[in-house]
Amino acid sequence: MRQEKIKTGSVGLVETRYFTFGNTEGDALVLESGQRLAPVIQAYETYGELNRDKSNAILVEHTLTSDAHAAGYHEGDIHPGWWDDMIGPGKAFDTDKYFVICSNVIGGCKGSTGPSSINPGTGKPYGLDFPVITVKDMVEAQKRLVDYLGIKRLLSVAGGSMGGMLALQWAADYPEMVDSAILIATAWKQSPQQLAFAEVGRQAIMKDPNWNNGNYYNGPRPENGLSVARMIGHITYMSETSMEDKFSRKLKNNDYSFSFNVDFEVESYLNYNGNVFVKRFDANSYLYITRALNYFDVSGEKLIPPGRTIDIRFLVISFLSDWLYPSWQSKEIVRFLMSRQQDTTYCEIKSTYGHDAFLLEFEEETRLIKHFLKKVVDEPG
Amino acid sequence: MRQEKIKTGSVGLVETRYFTFGNTEGDALVLESGQRLAPVIQAYETYGELNRDKSNAILVEHTLTSDAHAAGYHEGDIHPGWWDDMIGPGKAFDTDKYFVICSNVIGGCKGSTGPSSINPGTGKPYGLDFPVITVKDMVEAQKRLVDYLGIKRLLSVAGGSMGGMLALQWAADYPEMVDSAILIATAWKQSPQQLAFAEVGRQAIMKDPNWNNGNYYNGPRPENGLSVARMIGHITYMSETSMEDKFSRKLKNNDYSFSFNVDFEVESYLNYNGNVFVKRFDANSYLYITRALNYFDVSGEKLIPPGRTIDIRFLVISFLSDWLYPSWQSKEIVRFLMSRQQDTTYCEIKSTYGHDAFLLEFEEETRLIKHFLKKVVDEPG
Repeated sequence: MRQEKIKTGSVGLVETRYFTFGNTEGDALVLESGQRLAPVIQAYETYGELNRDKSNAILVEHTLTSDAHAAGYHEGDIHPGWWDDMIGPGKAFDTDKYFVICSNVIGGCKGSTGPSSINPGTGKPYGLDFPVITVKDMVEAQKRLVDYLGIKRLLSVAGGSMGGMLALQWAADYPEMVDSAILIATAWKQSPQQLAFAEVGRQAIMKDPNWNNGNYYNGPRPENGLSVARMIGHITYMSETSMEDKFSRKLKNNDYSFSFNVDFEVESYLNYNGNVFVKRFDANSYLYITRALNYFDVSGEKLIPPGRTIDIRFLVISFLSDWLYPSWQSKEIVRFLMSRQQDTTYCEIKSTYGHDAFLLEFEEETRLIKHFLKKVVDEPG
Repeated sequence: MRQEKIKTGSVGLVETRYFTFGNTEGDALVLESGQRLAPVIQAYETYGELNRDKSNAILVEHTLTSDAHAAGYHEGDIHPGWWDDMIGPGKAFDTDKYFVICSNVIGGCKGSTGPSSINPGTGKPYGLDFPVITVKDMVEAQKRLVDYLGIKRLLSVAGGSMGGMLALQWAADYPEMVDSAILIATAWKQSPQQLAFAEVGRQAIMKDPNWNNGNYYNGPRPENGLSVARMIGHITYMSETSMEDKFSRKLKNNDYSFSFNVDFEVESYLNYNGNVFVKRFDANSYLYITRALNYFDVSGEKLIPPGRTIDIRFLVISFLSDWLYPSWQSKEIVRFLMSRQQDTTYCEIKSTYGHDAFLLEFEEETRLIKHFLKKVVDEPG
């Protein structure tokens, strides 16, 4: 049954693996805040084969709420990984050619060390004792994984939304390790509107009495707050047009209920997604990761210091109807890269899907990314 | 002290008055849902003098969270009513010429009958026993007030945002009573995105344990949920540009706190406004009024039935950066009115303030409204 569901072009059955570092004091992760984190587990998956000279590795970065399982199927699952449309034999990230790595960020709740992990100092989940981490810290942990895999240089670091921020952070921190970066529907720092949406989501969580100052792992979870945060998120992921196309003002039943129950299909969609999300995501991780994104800022000379050139080719993609990470934020990056004579390709895709487009417009993305990666391989900088 | 604060052009000291109807069974308000509401109190204020032939009355409609106190000062207050910039001697709604009425909608919590009012059947606040009302019901209650004031025909019905919806409902239900309608930053029905934001706000309230199925008037109030709802609202009232101008990524202190406390000024603004709001607004009213707006729909022939012409002049104003009630929604109304040969003036104001522009761009609005009202008076249709 499951195997019938495996689409042509899938990488097939995959497993998440775990890399741990920081078991000795000197090996701990020193964070931007000055705190230390140890031990650190990095959950990761790989697809395709690393070639002999280890020059075909691509690091794919995930979004706020996704994870290391980007492609293929876990034993028993009927749905593939979150970017399966893009990763596999013959696909944009062609696993016949490239060795693709995807790693869950620290602070997350999908296998990498985060606030729901056991604090070795207490034997209990960290909760708010987990240190506040940054995108730089996430990249630092990934660097340890890449080192462990014996890879000196990544053919590409690629990601959409938060994933694009991690790719930018790699370019800022380890330019000598990166041949190319693919930045999709992202920004080099959040705008005040993005900060605002993140804050409201966090407040919804932190005002939930079950949140209990982050200490809820032995009791009821702050599902009410987390579902509201997720509902806000979903509104920002869609465009006005895609909401109109999908829901318009359609009712679940024939007439108004004259109550506060679900009447409109869009209400049903939001509530359903809020309820599903709380089963698969940790509220504290939502706080930590959104905070990391707030603090993220590699704008201008923080990306490339004055007088310096970096040997990275950039592909930047944005979507016309994305109002969460609008095109002007991509163009800001592109303008800067061009002003610094970096080899940069920019494309705005005329999608109506809003921010979600990055997970839906895979045909257009495939065309652009295949062509770009071929150039990176064929014409080394 | 207070009197020094009264600006030139103020209508001065004012008081809210109360009109009650429905004390006899036959006089009850029959709602769209089929339920009956009685008695019904309408809180209202008036500014200026009603002329002898009662032909100079303008009904100003308020927004989701404002009230009957549109202009002038209440005894002891240092701030004037919510649209004082627009109502007063020499102002857009010139109280030397016009008799301006503003009335709190039913379902509200500012003096008119709503879910926090005492249910005569139980002697306790209605809570969720209050019937779900619609914009049509709100207008029906206002019609009783206008009748009581002895006014047969309103020179204008005017409002922004929700206020514009009430003005449209007046035009749809009582076209013979309305000379003109001024519709600012509004829509003739909510888009799915607007439905979605409303639903998330309501869910934030209803998931607050203190909400207690609407029965909280003798205990702690659902302030957590209501403040989150308000914070979401504030994001939608501003534009990306106005947030950038006002906050950018400015910090409250010099550096990141590496915590979930307030770091950014925009976070401080949202939390402050959320906290202030819960002191002045009832959570159940937030549910009832947003629900009424969801159900509101006077699009197309619901506004003017086929083959009919109505004798109403329209002024429609929208704001370029308003993404909550964007210009396309105003243009939709305008196109329809023009197609039906209604006398219609449309202006899109090039403001960066987003939806809030309607409360801030009063100079431009004054110019347009003064000119429009003069025409309505001087050149009767």
